[in-house]
Formats: sequence, structure tokens, C-alpha cells
Amino acid sequence: MIETMGEKPPRRIITLLTDFGSRDPYVSSMKGVILSIAPETLVVDITHDVEPFNVLQAAFILYQASRWFPAGTIHVVVVDPGVGSERRALAIKTGRCTLIGPDNGVLMPVADHFGVVEVREIRKKFFECTSYTFHGRDIFAPAAASLAAGMEFRDLGPLVSDPKKLDFGRVKWIHGGLEARILHVDRFGNLITNISSDLYEKIASKRKIRIVVKGVAHVLKPARSYFEGKEKELLLLPGSGGFIEISLNKESAARFLGIRPGDTFVLKFGSSF
Amino acid sequence: MIETMGEKPPRRIITLLTDFGSRDPYVSSMKGVILSIAPETLVVDITHDVEPFNVLQAAFILYQASRWFPAGTIHVVVVDPGVGSERRALAIKTGRCTLIGPDNGVLMPVADHFGVVEVREIRKKFFECTSYTFHGRDIFAPAAASLAAGMEFRDLGPLVSDPKKLDFGRVKWIHGGLEARILHVDRFGNLITNISSDLYEKIASKRKIRIVVKGVAHVLKPARSYFEGKEKELLLLPGSGGFIEISLNKESAARFLGIRPGDTFVLKFGSSF
Amino acid sequence: MIETMGEKPPRRIITLLTDFGSRDPYVSSMKGVILSIAPETLVVDITHDVEPFNVLQAAFILYQASRWFPAGTIHVVVVDPGVGSERRALAIKTGRCTLIGPDNGVLMPVADHFGVVEVREIRKKFFECTSYTFHGRDIFAPAAASLAAGMEFRDLGPLVSDPKKLDFGRVKWIHGGLEARILHVDRFGNLITNISSDLYEKIASKRKIRIVVKGVAHVLKPARSYFEGKEKELLLLPGSGGFIEISLNKESAARFLGIRPGDTFVLKFGSSF
Repeated sequence: MIETMGEKPPRRIITLLTDFGSRDPYVSSMKGVILSIAPETLVVDITHDVEPFNVLQAAFILYQASRWFPAGTIHVVVVDPGVGSERRALAIKTGRCTLIGPDNGVLMPVADHFGVVEVREIRKKFFECTSYTFHGRDIFAPAAASLAAGMEFRDLGPLVSDPKKLDFGRVKWIHGGLEARILHVDRFGNLITNISSDLYEKIASKRKIRIVVKGVAHVLKPARSYFEGKEKELLLLPGSGGFIEISLNKESAARFLGIRPGDTFVLKFGSSF
Repeated sequence: MIETMGEKPPRRIITLLTDFGSRDPYVSSMKGVILSIAPETLVVDITHDVEPFNVLQAAFILYQASRWFPAGTIHVVVVDPGVGSERRALAIKTGRCTLIGPDNGVLMPVADHFGVVEVREIRKKFFECTSYTFHGRDIFAPAAASLAAGMEFRDLGPLVSDPKKLDFGRVKWIHGGLEARILHVDRFGNLITNISSDLYEKIASKRKIRIVVKGVAHVLKPARSYFEGKEKELLLLPGSGGFIEISLNKESAARFLGIRPGDTFVLKFGSSF
Repeated sequence: MIETMGEKPPRRIITLLTDFGSRDPYVSSMKGVILSIAPETLVVDITHDVEPFNVLQAAFILYQASRWFPAGTIHVVVVDPGVGSERRALAIKTGRCTLIGPDNGVLMPVADHFGVVEVREIRKKFFECTSYTFHGRDIFAPAAASLAAGMEFRDLGPLVSDPKKLDFGRVKWIHGGLEARILHVDRFGNLITNISSDLYEKIASKRKIRIVVKGVAHVLKPARSYFEGKEKELLLLPGSGGFIEISLNKESAARFLGIRPGDTFVLKFGSSF
């Protein structure tokens, strides 16, 4: 992927994103494997606190974080409810980065964003020892490290033409409003929706914006930053990650509204309710 | 900041201290930005588990950790209740390290400890894209990385003469005792006070030392290490971080006393109570 | 330890495994000390979320993670209920890696696995400033960093012939079954036992396998991967870390059975119950 003549190639970056948590030996075992194969690699944690088996949350976090890393970064995701089953292990070369993970859709929003160049199935017997329960250590980490150490992408395994799809869903315009989805709730309780920030001006210009959750409507105040809200006042913000957010000043909007990642909601405009 | 002739300068260290937690893409986005601007930087996490918006706790943790890093380290703090408001973004050059963070006092105990050389306001439009809600990624990380990559400190922005102050408060000697403050409760429930360990001998030599919390007095036994206490016996220790600590053998002194960071308490000596 | 002529030695890796948690300044202070003494070292976290003072858990996690790191890695463990007491600080050179930590047995399963070459007591006054309460920062980190920077192992301190022992216990074959122990419960609630995976085939071939916990017997189904179980069906797996595991499909087997690390249990075979 990186061609150099006579001079040292730049240090490769491998990021890790899992639902392994921080107590178990799983993440450090993966790091040990990577450093054994490619000693000069820089390993960066994205997070290991994805809700167990929550593929959508992992896809969202990868989508948000990956764009800020240098071109050529290798992102490894292990959120893998089907480990040991027949689901394939994938490597996806995109226009900007390389993605490694299970074929459950978790890599696809980033792959689609940067543009898929090539998808390959990583050979089952890729690494010396392969368990049935820890492909992070035995397949995904060695594959990423082998790429970092100079292996050709095509040598990972055969081409794949039908990776499993996943996207963040589409905003549905309805009479007097729209229907959308919560992608993520952050530590501060901010709700990140799947509504593009490009729509912020259009929505913020509406008269009387309300969010309807479980049949109850709450007024939203358009704002630019979190501190603009008064106590118990819900804000509608353009968000820093390209999606519209809903927040409550120094409190959790998620708890206040009783809403969770994956839930849908309705925005209503004007007096049509 | 570092001058070299013909040879490679030492690898710069940037530390990160935030209240972002470990699940969201915020910390890794900052790391991606830093590595994009200054690829050879070593990024070290101090913590991301500061209680949301707790500026005093962040200031304390930075104060404790920063002294152990090599000279020239750049410390970035993002505990920032006022993000997007008119609060300034600061860079402070001290006698030992460089500090980057919001102008809410969080940097000041360390700055005062090492001695302030120069304070600058980081230009609002420092980085290509600047959100209203994520200055960690859009201002603080790029400023730190730019310094690591060789930018001159004076090019960050204009001089500042009045950074917001913050200190750990002073111990008040009162009749037969003193009044002080809890700065931090650690994972083990040890209480770290704002009383300098230099006063340990003076206090430990008193006859009958008691801590008074919410009107209830508890005897403290002077000790050197945590293991010296019997069950339910509160210890008074010189502490490893320069402050006197109060601990309970293998239990949480904080829970036992019902006391929290920021709370004040009284130490009483002798029988005058 | 590493001899080179004229060329740069490989970057040394120091891993850290503690019960310090992620909020306090303790871990980052250790990293600052290491980077001050040996600036080129790569520091890798194994975990800092060991249950406070749980020496067995720390020993298990080190045992699992350490085998995946390159030869020459220095592993530092600070799970140390006896800090400040007369317990010794040890450095153990093994056939593969170097271990640094308190003399409470936490290093021994790994040391025994790789083979002990030499054990030394680290001098009490090893580093410039030594507190009574934070040997991680004042003794263990400086010792590891000094080795990484080229200090000879023998210069750490005097030889030790009687390090405190610790092992994971032996499986006891009883009439119609065996008695064993839970070493660890992972984030997913999988139970890792002290039964070697080498015994998997022998056990899995038995007719009707049951686990008996608190007098109640539950059927176990032999399986290769977690996904094979139906709802509420307990699986018996060979495990990825060399030990037999007991798991419940997408739920916590630990919560289901009410069992914790350190607990013993009985496996019964056939109808002999």
C-alpha cells in the first residue's frame, strides 16, 4: 500500500475497536500479537467499551473516529456475535484506510464513506493457532499486523463481492415533520441522530420544533453549543460529527426523554400536532 | 522549543486528560488529529474518566501526574463546561512543560507550580474545521500537535495577561486544630486532602487527632503505609503525592465518612472538643 | 539483556497490570517515570481494572496476556495489598520475559510457565524518591525502565531463592467427576476454569455432563464456539486461553450460576448423581 525506495516507510497505525471491555486479557493479547508480527506499529485504541454485540454502535463509533486518522491507517473492529460460526472475516481496502473485521456490516458505513476498492475474505487458517472463540487475536490482529509489516492485500484471501450491508437508516420526511433514528448516546447523555448536519439550517428555520417520543412532545431550541440551554431546556445542535444532536444543558437528554440508541423518533414542525 | 542541529529531535510527548469517558469517539478523534499533524508524537492518556465538568478534580489529577513526565511534555486538558461560549482557549508555557486547555483555571495549579513563562490565547480559527461543540478535536489537539511538529509558541495567538485563577485552597489553622479540604477520592476510597505532607510530622506529633465530619469526630492514627491500620481504623498518612491522606485499611474511607471531593473538614487535636 | 554491535537495539516493551483503575493519576505517573528514564520504551496497558487487591485475578490475566508479547518484554504488575510492609519487591528473569512486581505470588504462574532463570529483590532505595504507599511509581516502574534503558539484571539487587508461591490449583478427580475452580469471569460472563483445555476431549466424550453449584446440577453441552448454545443452554468449551470455559449464549453464565472467581465447583459425569 505504501511504496518507498530505500527510505524507511512511515510508521503504520492500527486502531482497535472492540466490545471486550478493559479488564480481560483479550485486548492486550491482540496488542501482543500485533507487536510480535509488526514491532514498529503504533496501536491506538478507539474504544473497547462498545455494548457487547452492539454492531450498530460499533459501526457509528468507527465512522466518527476513523475520518480523523492519517491515510493508510488500518482499523480493526471486533464486535462479533457470530464468532466461530460461518460468518466470514473481511478485509476491506478503501480509498483512504483499510478495514478488518467480521462480515456483519460493522465496517460498511466507513467503507461506503471512503469508497470500497477491494474486499477480501481473510483465510480461516491465517495465523499459526486459531481458536474457535477468539478471532480478534487469531485472525483479525494477525491480518492487520501482516499488512502493517508489508504483506500484500491480495494475499489475505479470496475476493468477496457480497459483504453484508449496514447503514444508519434514512430520514423519512412526513407531513409536517420527519422521522429519524438515534445512533448513539454519548457520556454526557447527548443524543446523536442519523439526521445530517447539512439539514440543520433547514430544520432550525422551522417555527416551533418539537421531538415526539412515546407520544409526548417536547420543544427543541435551535442552538450552536451546549451551554446555550437553560435548565431542562432541550437543544437542537448541528453536532461535531456531521449529525444533528439533541442535548440538555449539563444533564442527560437520553435519560430525560427515555430514549436509547436504535430508537426512532419524530420531529414535528409548526402547529400541526 | 527544542533546538537541534542536524540530528533528530527527541520524540515529543502529548498527554490527554478529559472527561470524555472511554466509549465515545471523542478521545480517539483527538488522537487521530494529533497523529495526522505530528506523526511521530507519543500520545499518553492521563485519564478520560474525570467526573463530567469537574474542573477541580481535573486540575488535581494533572497536578499529580504532570510532574513525573519528561521536561518538554505537552499536556492537553479538555474538561470544559463552557465549550462554545466566549471562554478563551489557552496555551501556557511553563518552566518545565506546556499546557493546553480552556481558560477555566484547570491548568493553573500546574502552571503556578512550574512557573508561568508565557500565556497565549489560541486563535479561534486555528484548525481547518472548527465545530462549536468539540474544541478538544478542533482547537486543543491541533494546537498541541502543531507545537510538537515545530510551530513556535508565539504563533498560537495573542498574549494573555489575566488567565482565570484556580488553587486548591489554603489550610486554616483554628483553635485546637485546622480546617482543610478534600481534593480527591481515589479508587481505593483514600481521601487526598489539600494539607501539604510537609505538615505531617507536626500534625502526627499531636496528642489525639480526630477528623470531624458532619459533627461526628473519628480518631485518626498516624501511619506511614496503608497496611498499618486494623479493621475500621482510620489512618493519617503523608501520602505519595505531596498531600496528607486519610485512609481505611482495605475499605473506602470516603464511604465510611460520607465525604466527597470539594468538601471541607476539621482536624482537632488534644482534648479540646 | 539485548546485545547489539553498532546497530540500534529493538524498542523495549514494558506492560503494566494494576488495580489502580483509570481515573486516578497513578498509572500515568508510572508512565511518566518510565518515559523519563527510558524515553524510547513502548508502554502497553494490560489492564488497570483488576479488582482491588485480587492477586489471583491479576496472576490469571498476566498469565493469559503475557504469552502473546514478543520475547524480551518486561511485565510490571502492581496489585499489592502489602505495599509499605516488609514484603519484597521482585524482579524475575524467565526464559522469555522479565517480570517485576511484589513478592505475593502474582508473578509466579507466568514465571513457572516460562521457567525461572533468576530472581532478585529490587533494592528498597532504588529510585531517588521512595514513598511508603506508591511503590508502583517509586520502585517497580523505575526498575523496569532501568532494565529497558540497559541496566544489568544483576544490578537490581540481591538474589532471592524463596519467592512466595502461587498457582491456579489442581483439578481433583473424584468418583464420577472432578472438582475444579473458577479462575476468572470475563466481561461476557464466561467462566474460565482451571481445567486444562487438553482435557476437553476426555470430558466432552462423557455421557451427561453436569456442573454442580451450591447443590444444584445444570447440564452442560459440549461445544466449540459460543454461538452454538440455545437460550439458557450452558456450554462447555475448550476456551481460547488454554482452559476449559463454561458459557451461556449471549448471557452471563456467572450470573446464571451465581458463581465467582475463586469458587470451586464439581463436574459430574453419567448418571451417578
